[in-house]
Amino acid sequence: MSQPLTIMPVIGIGEIQLGDDLAAVIYETTELLDGDVLVVTQKVVSKAEGRLVEIDPAVGHKPLVIEETVRVLRRRGDLIISETAQGFVCANAGIDLSNVESGKAALLPLDSDRSARGIRDALAHRFGVDVAVVISDTFGRPWRRGVTDVAIGCAGLRPIVDLRGTNDALGRELQVTEVAVVDEIASAAELVMGKADGVPVAVVRGIDPTWFGDGDVVADVVRAPGDDLFR
Amino acid sequence: MSQPLTIMPVIGIGEIQLGDDLAAVIYETTELLDGDVLVVTQKVVSKAEGRLVEIDPAVGHKPLVIEETVRVLRRRGDLIISETAQGFVCANAGIDLSNVESGKAALLPLDSDRSARGIRDALAHRFGVDVAVVISDTFGRPWRRGVTDVAIGCAGLRPIVDLRGTNDALGRELQVTEVAVVDEIASAAELVMGKADGVPVAVVRGIDPTWFGDGDVVADVVRAPGDDLFR
Repeated sequence: MSQPLTIMPVIGIGEIQLGDDLAAVIYETTELLDGDVLVVTQKVVSKAEGRLVEIDPAVGHKPLVIEETVRVLRRRGDLIISETAQGFVCANAGIDLSNVESGKAALLPLDSDRSARGIRDALAHRFGVDVAVVISDTFGRPWRRGVTDVAIGCAGLRPIVDLRGTNDALGRELQVTEVAVVDEIASAAELVMGKADGVPVAVVRGIDPTWFGDGDVVADVVRAPGDDLFR
Repeated sequence: MSQPLTIMPVIGIGEIQLGDDLAAVIYETTELLDGDVLVVTQKVVSKAEGRLVEIDPAVGHKPLVIEETVRVLRRRGDLIISETAQGFVCANAGIDLSNVESGKAALLPLDSDRSARGIRDALAHRFGVDVAVVISDTFGRPWRRGVTDVAIGCAGLRPIVDLRGTNDALGRELQVTEVAVVDEIASAAELVMGKADGVPVAVVRGIDPTWFGDGDVVADVVRAPGDDLFR
């Protein structure tokens, strides 16, 4: 592809609560075009889906982390690198206390690909706009400092675009080039969201149309532990 | 920040050879504005810097991988997960055979932050345009399938933006939020480059102006082995 890409923050979403109709709120706040990719941060999805839970002040959020962790990969001080039920590897099972009301914690959605499909389907069937949806979250990574946003769910998008076997610019066959475009889209969107500005949604416009299609983050991006050189 | 971001592929760079004046080629091909971030793929930097080497047909590129590896983290079949002299952890010491003429391999630049500074300084001093520069490369990662582009060098940009201690949207103090914007910028740029189209440069326009400043990828992003839970 060679067209420009535009990434727009969506301003004015406001505080999201349990039961809010996220697709409707987004549709009313955003000018969406067919072929856009809508990136929605995990936090508002978790809030809309009721994944905010009370923290017991006597023990803090640690028991929640343990509850949401199916396997502990590493532990250092207060930090646990967890594998979650969906297979994500992240700090403290993805439990987040920022941008959440005091005394509560936001757990990851139970099925973040389903969350993405729900938003996509609602936008398509109720509002007639055909967009892909990515649910993003902020994860650390080994070997490199700093966090980046990755996808924890998607709908209407091929999360990994396989360019294996297509020719490179010099006509030679490419080696492995399975690009995780879904994660690159999540990272790109984060650049306009900031962390403290309360911008939980962004629109990415101009994605290669051949990248639209079917796929799940959990099925297609999460690597099975047996295939992983670092588990 | 809340302004839109635009990511534009730079078409027409052509084949880059040893000794090419990369800054001049880019300047002639691109309409750059002060405050842009120029993302340049490792491949063209390596070519301009003479980091293309002959592959001995009798033994293939394996000896080159060993030579460029200071520590082997994992090995499976033909795949080596290397730590390079600069501290990058990547497959086969970052040696790449795609988009390189047959019989040759592209090694990583010797000092990719210096490469970025060279391009930035040339654009500033000779052409009068003040842009940040990111050198990008395509790396795999544990736990998730597919490759994404990350930064291996930068100049004129704070690679990690530290939002620790600023307030979140609900007025509470944020937890850890050191965002590796340099990697998110590299990933965003990759979305317009494709793999087979020979687009080695992209321009990212609209980055938060407070992110410009000083910093190196190697000094600021590469995690010291002793701080790394997975080494």
